[in-house]
Amino acid sequence: MPLNFPPTLEWRESALRLLDQTRLPAEEAYLDVRTVADLCDAIKRLVVRGAPAIGCAAAYGVLLAAREARAQSGSCGTARPVNWPERFDALCEQLAASRPTAVNLRWAVERCRAAAHGLLKAGKHIDQIEAALEREARGIHDEDRAMCEAIGRHGADLLPSGRATVMTHCNAGALATGGSGTALAVFYAAQARGAKLKIFADETRPLLQGARLTAWELARAGIAVTVICDNMAASVMRAHKPDAVVVGADRIAANGDTANKIGTYGLAILARHHGVPFFVAAPSSTFDLSLADGAGIPIEERHRGEIAEPYGRMSVPETAAVFNPAFDVTPADLITAIVTEKGVLRPPYRESIAKLLGG
Amino acid sequence: MPLNFPPTLEWRESALRLLDQTRLPAEEAYLDVRTVADLCDAIKRLVVRGAPAIGCAAAYGVLLAAREARAQSGSCGTARPVNWPERFDALCEQLAASRPTAVNLRWAVERCRAAAHGLLKAGKHIDQIEAALEREARGIHDEDRAMCEAIGRHGADLLPSGRATVMTHCNAGALATGGSGTALAVFYAAQARGAKLKIFADETRPLLQGARLTAWELARAGIAVTVICDNMAASVMRAHKPDAVVVGADRIAANGDTANKIGTYGLAILARHHGVPFFVAAPSSTFDLSLADGAGIPIEERHRGEIAEPYGRMSVPETAAVFNPAFDVTPADLITAIVTEKGVLRPPYRESIAKLLGG
Repeated sequence: MPLNFPPTLEWRESALRLLDQTRLPAEEAYLDVRTVADLCDAIKRLVVRGAPAIGCAAAYGVLLAAREARAQSGSCGTARPVNWPERFDALCEQLAASRPTAVNLRWAVERCRAAAHGLLKAGKHIDQIEAALEREARGIHDEDRAMCEAIGRHGADLLPSGRATVMTHCNAGALATGGSGTALAVFYAAQARGAKLKIFADETRPLLQGARLTAWELARAGIAVTVICDNMAASVMRAHKPDAVVVGADRIAANGDTANKIGTYGLAILARHHGVPFFVAAPSSTFDLSLADGAGIPIEERHRGEIAEPYGRMSVPETAAVFNPAFDVTPADLITAIVTEKGVLRPPYRESIAKLLGG
Repeated sequence: MPLNFPPTLEWRESALRLLDQTRLPAEEAYLDVRTVADLCDAIKRLVVRGAPAIGCAAAYGVLLAAREARAQSGSCGTARPVNWPERFDALCEQLAASRPTAVNLRWAVERCRAAAHGLLKAGKHIDQIEAALEREARGIHDEDRAMCEAIGRHGADLLPSGRATVMTHCNAGALATGGSGTALAVFYAAQARGAKLKIFADETRPLLQGARLTAWELARAGIAVTVICDNMAASVMRAHKPDAVVVGADRIAANGDTANKIGTYGLAILARHHGVPFFVAAPSSTFDLSLADGAGIPIEERHRGEIAEPYGRMSVPETAAVFNPAFDVTPADLITAIVTEKGVLRPPYRESIAKLLGG
């Protein structure tokens, strides 16, 4: 990959180091997180964001939870501290509940928690459990890197091999994963094959992840990127006839309905109207087969200030209401293909998804 | 009308007083403009904005131009100062060119300029010409008020008489006209008839006229308004099934293609997708029959900083490009009806527009 970025997240002995994404692009600053409460706060404040990156961070967070549960029990030297499982589970639950929409968060927490309970049942010493949790988290992080590479390869097959104009929304890049991204991994892979890309990045209100993060990482990777306001996407589609729209996903239901950053649904409608292929790039951990369709995906609503007071300056009078959903659901029938690390899914998605996840 | 606003613009003896819309909603501040250069600057900086309001301001601006041309000639006491017509025409041209997309600006300047030249030809004294220009500007302003009332009446006929949920974009209200607005006049008229309205206002990046201005004036008029980011419109349409979208216009071609604030075109596509009627509300002065269709409408591109540095804080890295068109063109086939002060136009627009403007 052409990436030479500061790592989005990194385990460092006693702390999880996060690149503070709230401060990009103006500053590259780091935050060292040592407790579950601090990690939950970092996830809620979007210091770390993007479904796969949240999953990786949460995996390391389960290790923090194990250590914290031991410290809380006040018996650091013992093999099986008093009430450790209860304290550990409560911290894991707190972590899993820090954001509601992305499924990777709970998936990663449950995977690590289950590993810990397995070892507990087998009578292992708490030291061994902690060591295993570190291995598990590093494993999830490594898998995430490999997943990004594979998504990039599969996705690049869908783009023209020479010049290509592509649109994207929010940030589904290196900053949103433990590796090179999902949607943006497709661009990095295409570039590595010699494609000459021109990317239009929606700024993505209210928190401007497209303007702040996608533009930063694409420019840093030497890919030509132009930032537009979200409401300019239709004009760009008509004028520039892009070859594709590629976006990430936070949760995908069994029928292919896809929750992603607010604005994705509208963009998919505009793509359909202009005959532009609309691709979702996401790891298989994003699928939630417990949901028959997108109606069951919980949509996080965030606070008024994100819209009403950008940069602390009042832009909405106090007498007006504000609605701030962080995600929307794009119906499967607007999605041309879903690119996963295991291959490219096409409609009908209920069948292709079941086959992918069963196989 | 239920409006008890500070006037958007007001002629005061020697100056045009403008409500400074760049400072709303935080502050109600005024700017007194005495020269054509200062008025051009105010128009460019969007102290006054909205096609009809710009037209009214420009009409008073022609009076400023006449006075300035006389002062420049250094012969204030004479009946026909040296070079007055040349100086006056140059100032009028400067004014007409201050923004390219709205047609009302040049329309108002040309109407007043033609009146002045008529009197000049008839041998009138410069004092008489200035007095006539003040009458002409006040006349345009009065016509604008009456136009708003009539648009409101015609448009309210298109909304349900009881509860109605309506979406709008940017600000086509009292702040955008010399009266009660175009799109928002429809809401004020419906409210006066007893309708209970719920309005969703797109914030309208980059300059947030929806959040700052539309929310401010609707809330002040006692109409329930909820501000959303532009990229939330599709979600709101699916969830709230609005009865209509109503927007303003900056220029309408002979076939009904409509230039309006950037984002209008995308909103029209979303409305079509969700089966929501899409209404344009605009005075007949917005039509430009010299253009067969929207392809000929010049689209103003504004500077990078509006997107890249909201409130002075960097949100786009310097290594990324920015594209900032201020308007887009909505094809006539996405428009359900065009509401003018003379009545409601329906497709086929080439015929209905020709009939309206010919009649």
